[in-house]
Amino acid sequence: MSDDARIKSTRIHTGRVINLDVDLVRYPNGATGELEIIRHPGASAIVPFLSDPAGADPQVLLLKQYRYAASGTLYEIPAGRLEPGELPEACARRELLEETGCTATSMTPLTSMFTTPGFTDERIHLFLATGITRGEARPEADEFMELESIPLSKALQMIERGEIQDAKTALGLLFAAGFRSGR
Amino acid sequence: MSDDARIKSTRIHTGRVINLDVDLVRYPNGATGELEIIRHPGASAIVPFLSDPAGADPQVLLLKQYRYAASGTLYEIPAGRLEPGELPEACARRELLEETGCTATSMTPLTSMFTTPGFTDERIHLFLATGITRGEARPEADEFMELESIPLSKALQMIERGEIQDAKTALGLLFAAGFRSGR
Repeated sequence: MSDDARIKSTRIHTGRVINLDVDLVRYPNGATGELEIIRHPGASAIVPFLSDPAGADPQVLLLKQYRYAASGTLYEIPAGRLEPGELPEACARRELLEETGCTATSMTPLTSMFTTPGFTDERIHLFLATGITRGEARPEADEFMELESIPLSKALQMIERGEIQDAKTALGLLFAAGFRSGR
Repeated sequence: MSDDARIKSTRIHTGRVINLDVDLVRYPNGATGELEIIRHPGASAIVPFLSDPAGADPQVLLLKQYRYAASGTLYEIPAGRLEPGELPEACARRELLEETGCTATSMTPLTSMFTTPGFTDERIHLFLATGITRGEARPEADEFMELESIPLSKALQMIERGEIQDAKTALGLLFAAGFRSGR
């Protein structure tokens, strides 16, 4: 529908992470209007289980990451943007390695979600990683993060208490906790 | 930390929904760099329960909404941006009324989350609405949506199957399903 809906697209800003377009759009009722849209390449995020996800209270690996947009640190699962031509699973394995030093024998797709579809086409692809071997992280120069291994039950409490404030992280943990028994 | 971290902010675009800044930032290690950041006023989203959330398989109200950024329709919970000076609960009640025609006797905060903190300061405030009285929706001219009442168990299946692809919606439903018994 999008290709039909787009009448004109004007690139306002070409950035390092995102691009901003203002598009002239034809709505489903035939009316037209302008919409701001942040073009994003998409991202992958990984819920890393350090022990059997179907076992009793498995350990998950979280990052405590500095985020300028959040004015401080957030608990997050490892994640990052897709490089040009990169498939979501390859991105997930690359980001897991870069941010945590971990490799995984199994990288199972959980779901894909639009992060905030009112103004961006960003989709995040969520994976569950098991069979983890730990190694040395190699974060980028503008990434500041510490690793924490946390029991899943505690991570769920942190969501309920508002101590986990990153949507992809809460979603990945709740999704894995809710549906992992069926896998 | 953000106020200390911001050295300079340049407004690139002032839009209808979002603003784009490029900020010169001092990182935690003292290094400096430029970051694109989408400034957003924040939003509220509501999980509307049409029957007792603690009862057996309660009904929830979803929207099937046209989203240009998603090239089609998405199942979503009602949601919208905060107006200047508006509190999250007032926004939640206003958006619930505008998008669904519903009023709620109880609007309980669930959690607040950063939607995608790598490039925006948008926070979404999630609420659980109960004691619903239905009325006539009054969507805005650029909003195209249909209402669907769905059993919570089916909505959770739709998340697992990838039929619900909006992050705030999946998060709100999973959060409400996971933690409602404790309320």
